[in-house]
Amino acid sequence: MDSGTRIENALQAAIARAEVQACPPGLAAAMRYAVFPRGARVRPRLCLAVAAACGDDEPTLSDAAAISIELLHCASLVHDDLPCFDDADTRRGRPSVHRAFGEPLAVLTGDALIVLAFQALADAVHQPRRLAQVLMTVSRSVGVPLGIVAGQAWECEPRVDVVHYHRSKTGALFAAAAMAGAAAAGANDEPWRILGETIGEAYQSADDIRDAAGDAKEIGKPTGQDTVLGRPNVVTELGLAGALRRVDQLVAEAVAAIPLCPGAADLKSLIVSESKRLLPPKLAQIAA
Amino acid sequence: MDSGTRIENALQAAIARAEVQACPPGLAAAMRYAVFPRGARVRPRLCLAVAAACGDDEPTLSDAAAISIELLHCASLVHDDLPCFDDADTRRGRPSVHRAFGEPLAVLTGDALIVLAFQALADAVHQPRRLAQVLMTVSRSVGVPLGIVAGQAWECEPRVDVVHYHRSKTGALFAAAAMAGAAAAGANDEPWRILGETIGEAYQSADDIRDAAGDAKEIGKPTGQDTVLGRPNVVTELGLAGALRRVDQLVAEAVAAIPLCPGAADLKSLIVSESKRLLPPKLAQIAA
Repeated sequence: MDSGTRIENALQAAIARAEVQACPPGLAAAMRYAVFPRGARVRPRLCLAVAAACGDDEPTLSDAAAISIELLHCASLVHDDLPCFDDADTRRGRPSVHRAFGEPLAVLTGDALIVLAFQALADAVHQPRRLAQVLMTVSRSVGVPLGIVAGQAWECEPRVDVVHYHRSKTGALFAAAAMAGAAAAGANDEPWRILGETIGEAYQSADDIRDAAGDAKEIGKPTGQDTVLGRPNVVTELGLAGALRRVDQLVAEAVAAIPLCPGAADLKSLIVSESKRLLPPKLAQIAA
Repeated sequence: MDSGTRIENALQAAIARAEVQACPPGLAAAMRYAVFPRGARVRPRLCLAVAAACGDDEPTLSDAAAISIELLHCASLVHDDLPCFDDADTRRGRPSVHRAFGEPLAVLTGDALIVLAFQALADAVHQPRRLAQVLMTVSRSVGVPLGIVAGQAWECEPRVDVVHYHRSKTGALFAAAAMAGAAAAGANDEPWRILGETIGEAYQSADDIRDAAGDAKEIGKPTGQDTVLGRPNVVTELGLAGALRRVDQLVAEAVAAIPLCPGAADLKSLIVSESKRLLPPKLAQIAA
């Protein structure tokens, strides 16, 4: 089964937990809405790609690790879109969760998706020692002091530590995706951190470029938000051409950061081919 | 070390994770504010009491289980107090978290405390098999379909299933407290569910009585909120005298539900003595 299908199947099974009579139907509907239809799924695909490179001899655990990362990502989008943060009306071309279901259910949907990430991990009880390592890696990437929730909280500070802001808000979950994939396959996860962080930085830079120079309809969310909200953006820093070069450079650094492992060559090819999808066609043409 | 000290020490260590330079100071301060000074800590004390009754041969894991439950409870209070839910100005006699730190940090504080609960569990890696069971029990009690987040989401439904509402919103975390204590000590946790749920129901009934007949200053939060917010309350259902009798009856049921275990007699004494603290002195006098 290809990794995209594995991810969608595992996410479907996780969301189905909420779709029973005992669960409030509004919450169940909002959770499904927040997770489907699929976005790029770039983090769980990275997780499974690293697991494959390390042998992937416990696919149930790698699937759980991959979707725990994606569920945490979806949760952060739901909470980041709330009126007290970005007050975003749209996401992936549709009304944001709080616009579609109201603010109370949006808060609870984020909470429930965070917890569902850990429920998904808990299901992988048959490999308890690896599970403990995956749990540590995943929980750190979303908590304090250096996870995505802490990253978002820098937006509430009068003086932002930009390095910690980016590393926490974006890099942490990418690092965890790579590390959890390795840990799920029984490999030492620490050597995989740089690969994940570098891919995360490439992805964040591409996101900055889309925000600064992309087309709102193509991207499915409003553009120019970083300027409006006063957030750091690599295009402001380096210009468009410089930002596009930076993405290429980061992809090369990511490839160079692949640790020794049985599937290193395949992983390298995958990262190079995936990197071509980082930017919308028009912007990619400029880069070429 | 007595259980109260163990709980406070473990909570201090958990919150200290946020109190480093890499973490946004506002988030760290709000997390500390949400967890200290101590409330009744009734759930983690139940957890440690059950662990003790089952032998408590892995006290690090029981401490982690106990504080994971308390952190999830604190997180739920922070989110429940938000303007889009109860819009509560005060909690434990002080401004609620969103009044003291603003709504964005209140949302993130709840998120960070949920994750911290799982980070605390992840630290107990040296007992991976038991950890996996504790993780499953704790994550289910706060997620879908029957955890506290699902319980809160019933408040967003046009028709509330009152049985599922109470079981999820209050009972689930009490049941998890008892079950996680047993699992941390290596015992089968399922037989401990009824004890936890029954103590949870006694506690909820006492809370209803305080809300309906208590003194706001003594309790540290506004009274009469259930009537204002149209929430079910046992005093409305049974009258004050009936509600007080119901608490006594539930405490007796809890004692009768203690499974066979080495420390059953001590646990019985503890539940009986703790039950005397369920109600403020004036209301307890009426009951007597």
